[in-house]
Amino acid sequence: MEIGPYAEYALAGGGKHLRPALVALSANALGKTNEAHITAAVIIEMVHLATLVHDDVMDEGRIRRGKPTLAAQWGNEVAVLFGDCLFAQALKLAAGFPTPEICRAVAMSTKTVCSGEILQTQHRKDFQFSRDDYFRVLEMKTAELFALSSDLGAYLSGATPAQRNGARQFGLAFGTAYQVYDDCVDLFGSESAAGKSLGTDLAKGKLTLPVMLARERATAQDRARLERLVQNWDQGAFAELLSILTQYDALQGAVESVHENLEKARQILRALPETHGREHLLALTKYLARQVSGLIVCG
Amino acid sequence: MEIGPYAEYALAGGGKHLRPALVALSANALGKTNEAHITAAVIIEMVHLATLVHDDVMDEGRIRRGKPTLAAQWGNEVAVLFGDCLFAQALKLAAGFPTPEICRAVAMSTKTVCSGEILQTQHRKDFQFSRDDYFRVLEMKTAELFALSSDLGAYLSGATPAQRNGARQFGLAFGTAYQVYDDCVDLFGSESAAGKSLGTDLAKGKLTLPVMLARERATAQDRARLERLVQNWDQGAFAELLSILTQYDALQGAVESVHENLEKARQILRALPETHGREHLLALTKYLARQVSGLIVCG
Repeated sequence: MEIGPYAEYALAGGGKHLRPALVALSANALGKTNEAHITAAVIIEMVHLATLVHDDVMDEGRIRRGKPTLAAQWGNEVAVLFGDCLFAQALKLAAGFPTPEICRAVAMSTKTVCSGEILQTQHRKDFQFSRDDYFRVLEMKTAELFALSSDLGAYLSGATPAQRNGARQFGLAFGTAYQVYDDCVDLFGSESAAGKSLGTDLAKGKLTLPVMLARERATAQDRARLERLVQNWDQGAFAELLSILTQYDALQGAVESVHENLEKARQILRALPETHGREHLLALTKYLARQVSGLIVCG
Repeated sequence: MEIGPYAEYALAGGGKHLRPALVALSANALGKTNEAHITAAVIIEMVHLATLVHDDVMDEGRIRRGKPTLAAQWGNEVAVLFGDCLFAQALKLAAGFPTPEICRAVAMSTKTVCSGEILQTQHRKDFQFSRDDYFRVLEMKTAELFALSSDLGAYLSGATPAQRNGARQFGLAFGTAYQVYDDCVDLFGSESAAGKSLGTDLAKGKLTLPVMLARERATAQDRARLERLVQNWDQGAFAELLSILTQYDALQGAVESVHENLEKARQILRALPETHGREHLLALTKYLARQVSGLIVCG
């Protein structure tokens, strides 16, 4: 098998496997897990892994999850092609289901994820990029795959269309909360916990919520200073940037947004049947709430 | 639509649309074309376009079909993501068919194409790479998509499983012939007709049939000279390389291989029902035979 070693290498990196977990938790909230859920979880994690592998080609990221990226280890060509193989293999598995439903859902979500990433790339260092734009990109590039996870978990448990839609909406809200949290970690986390260097979003010209909030709240002078820092990003300016963000309570604002989205996710859960499994989805939102609050305590 | 301009740009490049043509010709050979054939042709051309866009990222190709590549025009990030979008959109269209059959076939072929490209990348400048290896890679990276085209053309015309297999085998043989021809053009064609510079395969370390044949036939001394040229490829050595290839009739040998594969394709055709449409597939093999013979006349 020509791609075996790459797959092993990419998988050995670990990761939190949040999306497969969401498939299983959503399945148990609305029924019982079965073999099909495992396949769906594998498919979604493969799509996610493919986007990570391609991200590292584009960002020229050298370290992911504490070790050299596939692109750094084997070169960009192998990384582009291996990512393509992962997409194709995921869709091949999806096409193994008796109806085209799964294949359709996976292909649509994949398209949405890639389109979201393109939008993000098009708006690098673009201060016209509004908070609405930010949340739209985030829903496309991240929350969509969480939504697919909880949706397919529910679907393969025999959920009703309304329940399935509820599961999907839960995934969207939870995924949004997760990405805002992740954006905060890139600025206010610790390098050891994140497994990568901080400030990588700014190095790539990505404007995230804390930076947007600080910019909105800042005096004209501080805003100009912030924009200059972002325009000509230099890792040496990280401390100066953090001091501006802190001055305008940017972390607090972003953390509030995480909590709002988690609360929205919980409200959606309340409309689903009261099952034991539903409590585990609730616990997941509480876990992320604790994580994000921890950022303020440490910061 | 965030990807509209990229799609327009990539499509404006033209191309021969051989794969969509094969869908239509195969459809007419075994039945009648219908709306589904158009969708299948679009899907296959999108997959093909996605691989071209990603090829240009990997090869750092700057010119394709006589104009700057998407990667050269908009950067590698956009090119990687746009390629991913094309794959996803193709699979989304494939999943629109009532049964998962098309989706499965497209995903499997896509996986084969990417695996073939990985194999090729792994064997750059590798003189252990045998002629069998060469044909295996070629079948995977090129002929597979031709096989998919004629297979789906037949399938969507209501062909029997045996006829469908015949159509697929025809696509494999014709696709193999086409890629060997294309490999010859890169060495013996004219830059204006090819729409790109010659010698690009060697610049990427790809060993193609003419080079392999010359190496097999050469004296120990010429073989060493050939290997040195390939190992430290420099466009300035193109004339020297051509003189070695000519000395050992490498073009003639490769052209014979094209004709053999075309003859194989014709034999497969003879097993299909005698229809008017079958004659058009036959004409296609004759067209390629004339093209490849033209290389010797001009060379």
